[in-house]
Amino acid sequence: MPGNTIGKIYTLRSFGESHGAAIGGIIDGCPPGLQLSTEAIQRQLERRRPGASDIATPRDEPDKLEILSGLFRGITTGAPVGFLVRNRDAREQAYDNLEHTFRPSHADYTWQAKYGIRDHRGGGRSSAREHVARVVAGAIAAQYLALAGIQIRAHTSRVGHLHLQQERLPHPAPLREESPIGCPDPLLEREMIALIRDTRRAGDSIGGVVTCVIRGVPPGVGEPVFDRFQARLAHYMMSINAAKGFEYGEGFDAATARGSQHNDSFRPTHSGGITTATNHSGGIQGGITNGEEIYFRVAFKPIPTISIPQQTVTSQGQETELAAAGRHDPCVIPRVLPVVEAMAAMLTLDMMLEGNHYPSKITGEANSAL
Amino acid sequence: MPGNTIGKIYTLRSFGESHGAAIGGIIDGCPPGLQLSTEAIQRQLERRRPGASDIATPRDEPDKLEILSGLFRGITTGAPVGFLVRNRDAREQAYDNLEHTFRPSHADYTWQAKYGIRDHRGGGRSSAREHVARVVAGAIAAQYLALAGIQIRAHTSRVGHLHLQQERLPHPAPLREESPIGCPDPLLEREMIALIRDTRRAGDSIGGVVTCVIRGVPPGVGEPVFDRFQARLAHYMMSINAAKGFEYGEGFDAATARGSQHNDSFRPTHSGGITTATNHSGGIQGGITNGEEIYFRVAFKPIPTISIPQQTVTSQGQETELAAAGRHDPCVIPRVLPVVEAMAAMLTLDMMLEGNHYPSKITGEANSAL
Amino acid sequence: MPGNTIGKIYTLRSFGESHGAAIGGIIDGCPPGLQLSTEAIQRQLERRRPGASDIATPRDEPDKLEILSGLFRGITTGAPVGFLVRNRDAREQAYDNLEHTFRPSHADYTWQAKYGIRDHRGGGRSSAREHVARVVAGAIAAQYLALAGIQIRAHTSRVGHLHLQQERLPHPAPLREESPIGCPDPLLEREMIALIRDTRRAGDSIGGVVTCVIRGVPPGVGEPVFDRFQARLAHYMMSINAAKGFEYGEGFDAATARGSQHNDSFRPTHSGGITTATNHSGGIQGGITNGEEIYFRVAFKPIPTISIPQQTVTSQGQETELAAAGRHDPCVIPRVLPVVEAMAAMLTLDMMLEGNHYPSKITGEANSAL
Amino acid sequence: MPGNTIGKIYTLRSFGESHGAAIGGIIDGCPPGLQLSTEAIQRQLERRRPGASDIATPRDEPDKLEILSGLFRGITTGAPVGFLVRNRDAREQAYDNLEHTFRPSHADYTWQAKYGIRDHRGGGRSSAREHVARVVAGAIAAQYLALAGIQIRAHTSRVGHLHLQQERLPHPAPLREESPIGCPDPLLEREMIALIRDTRRAGDSIGGVVTCVIRGVPPGVGEPVFDRFQARLAHYMMSINAAKGFEYGEGFDAATARGSQHNDSFRPTHSGGITTATNHSGGIQGGITNGEEIYFRVAFKPIPTISIPQQTVTSQGQETELAAAGRHDPCVIPRVLPVVEAMAAMLTLDMMLEGNHYPSKITGEANSAL
Repeated sequence: MPGNTIGKIYTLRSFGESHGAAIGGIIDGCPPGLQLSTEAIQRQLERRRPGASDIATPRDEPDKLEILSGLFRGITTGAPVGFLVRNRDAREQAYDNLEHTFRPSHADYTWQAKYGIRDHRGGGRSSAREHVARVVAGAIAAQYLALAGIQIRAHTSRVGHLHLQQERLPHPAPLREESPIGCPDPLLEREMIALIRDTRRAGDSIGGVVTCVIRGVPPGVGEPVFDRFQARLAHYMMSINAAKGFEYGEGFDAATARGSQHNDSFRPTHSGGITTATNHSGGIQGGITNGEEIYFRVAFKPIPTISIPQQTVTSQGQETELAAAGRHDPCVIPRVLPVVEAMAAMLTLDMMLEGNHYPSKITGEANSAL
Repeated sequence: MPGNTIGKIYTLRSFGESHGAAIGGIIDGCPPGLQLSTEAIQRQLERRRPGASDIATPRDEPDKLEILSGLFRGITTGAPVGFLVRNRDAREQAYDNLEHTFRPSHADYTWQAKYGIRDHRGGGRSSAREHVARVVAGAIAAQYLALAGIQIRAHTSRVGHLHLQQERLPHPAPLREESPIGCPDPLLEREMIALIRDTRRAGDSIGGVVTCVIRGVPPGVGEPVFDRFQARLAHYMMSINAAKGFEYGEGFDAATARGSQHNDSFRPTHSGGITTATNHSGGIQGGITNGEEIYFRVAFKPIPTISIPQQTVTSQGQETELAAAGRHDPCVIPRVLPVVEAMAAMLTLDMMLEGNHYPSKITGEANSAL
Repeated sequence: MPGNTIGKIYTLRSFGESHGAAIGGIIDGCPPGLQLSTEAIQRQLERRRPGASDIATPRDEPDKLEILSGLFRGITTGAPVGFLVRNRDAREQAYDNLEHTFRPSHADYTWQAKYGIRDHRGGGRSSAREHVARVVAGAIAAQYLALAGIQIRAHTSRVGHLHLQQERLPHPAPLREESPIGCPDPLLEREMIALIRDTRRAGDSIGGVVTCVIRGVPPGVGEPVFDRFQARLAHYMMSINAAKGFEYGEGFDAATARGSQHNDSFRPTHSGGITTATNHSGGIQGGITNGEEIYFRVAFKPIPTISIPQQTVTSQGQETELAAAGRHDPCVIPRVLPVVEAMAAMLTLDMMLEGNHYPSKITGEANSAL
Repeated sequence: MPGNTIGKIYTLRSFGESHGAAIGGIIDGCPPGLQLSTEAIQRQLERRRPGASDIATPRDEPDKLEILSGLFRGITTGAPVGFLVRNRDAREQAYDNLEHTFRPSHADYTWQAKYGIRDHRGGGRSSAREHVARVVAGAIAAQYLALAGIQIRAHTSRVGHLHLQQERLPHPAPLREESPIGCPDPLLEREMIALIRDTRRAGDSIGGVVTCVIRGVPPGVGEPVFDRFQARLAHYMMSINAAKGFEYGEGFDAATARGSQHNDSFRPTHSGGITTATNHSGGIQGGITNGEEIYFRVAFKPIPTISIPQQTVTSQGQETELAAAGRHDPCVIPRVLPVVEAMAAMLTLDMMLEGNHYPSKITGEANSAL
């Protein structure tokens, strides 16, 4: 199947281009019986919305969600949820100069090579505006997961050279209240914001790392061999625009460790269960969850759109120079945080449904516990 | 679908436990017309075979491949290729003490939690012995890719604290002849081997990083949005036992870079095509290949089986101490190298078939070019 | 994956309820480069539209198509095609009496059993109004197929006891111009229309059979074993509301035949190809097309909504009597004809793409040949 | 995915050619905890075995099953079940004359057109010998279903012009003890056997119809829209070699009926449930089961291999005459009966697992209830 669908049971198929009529999608696999909060979805869209802060693109989109199906009196019925968000602030003509020029490190050249045709306006289908559909599907998944006591939260752990020192603990820093860029260290956060502003002023862009924690997943969730929890999680994360790396648990640091340091000893719990003394594994062993916190990191490259002039070629093969004039973000942070959370929520719900760790129907009592 | 199948068009479904009758699989999606070299498959199996070197487990398995279908007079017919490798050196009783004990950082506890039953002998289905099936399917994929001029080679870039200095170049070090652990720097390789031997002598294990390069993929291969080349590649790699991290191109280092440094300028080629001045992107832009080299790294944790005593619990929740007596590897390197290559070959062929960049039938002339 | 998606490469996922905001879908897998005619799609919607004739339901829906993505300057880009048709003439209150009553031979009881909740208004998601999405996706597929010289046409071969005599010829009756109910025999057609009118006047409904012919498919299309052309075709057809049977070629009559009668002898053609002297096989042998016409029949039951009072029970298990007051069709014919064609077109294109019998990109010249 | 895999959760991928080394498969999705009876599987293989009766091919195959994985101490573990059945009585040279000749109404020509190469020995991969893998997977599914009180039984309802008179009752004839060809009417059965013998003596073959009943499926099983129970059932059945038609419930007869005759009125049961007064629907409404018996019919054409000389062409396009000399069946009946049951069992278990109507783990008590 072509690449616009993700998931096995809780699944999203999305559509839409940056400057087309709308971004939208169809979610299939919603367990019936959930009293859906559209406000909660809209809040996540707001976190990703352009124009929401001075360190993000000034493109102004209200990003108003319209749900077209799958609900009856506000409750999910098990039927597919069709939804869309209209594009409003689409300035087509701003992209006229890009119709025949390949922007460096963008999808222009490769999509032209694949399809022989492309919608050049704002990157068309390859634009990160497609993330809107993910945020909607993720925010719905998060509501299902909340009923099972599962919480997902992403935070910024690096912007350029600035990074959290206490990041690679057995258990990561506690989730804190939201902040402008979601960094748990307030002093560092201020530095990060300053760095992003400086970068923008220089007409440049900068990379970053997002750390995400999934809390409350019971033991036994995941599939063996090819569909390990971490394998599918990596797939979901690496499908986000600009992602360049993924690691979970100790990640790349595990390559420098000895088994005697890295292994997580088991301990009995007071309630007769089992826990681990440390959590270097990141909550997953043999591809299946062990009940500890799942934590992982996603590295993002600097956004390729910059105002500094760059050498490139036209679709006719002529050398040319390009300097972005359009509206753009200097860093994927903070707008990518709800996208990481969304993808993590979709995957977690999907794997819980696959392993029958989540009910196929929601009862009224469960809803009231929300 | 449960997790024992991978791929969309060139697909592998595998079966088998570490100490069961056999490891095997069915490959569906082989284009008809390939004169298959079983010797070439056997050579890759030999690279992964236990007992092949003094830095690997002494378990002695001939790993003799038996192909049961899909060939007619040595040529693929388009019918599924069923194959198996019998297990020989299975010493069941060596595992009696593990029937009721959960080994730390192994799959024992989580698989018990998921299935309620497990084959404890050598890890059963969760054992890395399952990689045998991957190596077979990958070695067949590699023969198809060779006809299209595509080469895949993995090398060791880190063992513990020892790592290649010149690794993160725009273009990675040239592929060299095979060496005991596949490190391109002979001096460093000797140090790595010594480190692995020391670690084994100490009853411990150690992690490492494998770098892999895919050469010769044309522009335009990959799918958009959720099935980007790198997203599926991450899925394939993170499904390998002990993998903890994946990055491609500049990977995590890209998070520290500026757009003006990281962007790859386009340049016209003499033949009227397009190339990039640098290759920070790692051969993929917008999820689709640009014709440059694809390179990526996979981080592996230290193998959790160690002789040093460890604290753990029994399936009854009793605390106990465990020290491995069985045969085991001190490091995934070098045996994981052909596995990384196999997964890369399977994915590359699959995505080329999906995008019609590979013929659906092989003609006789193509075979003779092998 | 839940049941709202169909296809492997050319795929439709649909959403929407009978009396919800809209019916719509996302088509993924459209080869880029097609100059799409939205008029041609609208024409097919018109054939299925309620209120279009006096033998169909008087519910009046303009069924105006809105395409939201996947086109650039009217040409398909390879990106998913999102579309919707708003519901207008939704009279919710007409269904108040059905909220707690199970209509006989409808989906009310079984969907309640499955989901624990249902949208009772006009059958909700189980309504044949969902066919709108199929007609759109099928009309687009038909445009692709037309470029390859493939034509698909359904006709009415039975209404109640009235049926075509010359139906089961080796080659079915030639396609003729459209008629009110698509029966190739004008005299019989008049009788059929009269029968449908009589049935409606009696407050009853009646069944029928649709025959469909696919012309121009080259030899070699289809997949072996489980995904034979006829197996997937049966799947597509039996997914249409009210379908009760499927047969291709001689179908059930083949069960009464001898091999010496039923076998289709091969003959050389003047152009050096191969043809068959007869076509009892219906254009498919061993699951794969042989280049002859593919023909098949789909049997439909009488629509279960009738004005004649019927015994049933409430959701509380109380006996009650029910007589439909709402608007409804007395027969699936003629409105199901474009649905059968749509499903046949989607499948044919999908299988041609899967077997690489259809180009992955459309060139400009091909479009002009339309 | 190519066509050698079927199912979503309980899935079979098969391999093997008629005269290759073996027929086998991998079943993925077996719920863990079943005490598997290999004798029960072998019994079903015996029913399909060639050489078992004088109205079937004299090819003599012991069809001895070898299970290679997925069991621990005789109990399923949730790991994939790999299995194979070796081919023994393969007389390759008997097929030398067919290497360059296309047998009428066989897969020879179409597979050559698709793949450009084919294993001509006994039909290669297109041979009905592939059904062996289905019978194994179906017999395992049947053991799971038995734990839930579900029984599946196929019987012969037609051979040529001879057919059951009482077939199309609301509820079909009760299942009776096995008979040589599985016809519930002993007198008719004798006539059918005589007809098959006469046909064979004439060097000809003859078609037939198999009716199958699935008992004990609870209400609520199935998926909506494209994956209705009957749509997937049709897919499974029409994938059997020589199948030409499928119908469920009243099937094609429903096309002649009125709604007032065909509708199944609901009635309350004494235990507070709901049943139907009649079962014209065949146990499925709106694509989902209603708890009544599911019954359906599959029409099979006469086997195309006959001794009577037939006109055909060679792969070089030369006209030639062909008269089968090899061993072959004069009728798919009775050997296809366990195949129909197998496919029905696989589908039923798959859909029950998909809808969470079947436990994801089997407890010891359930096994003892077997």
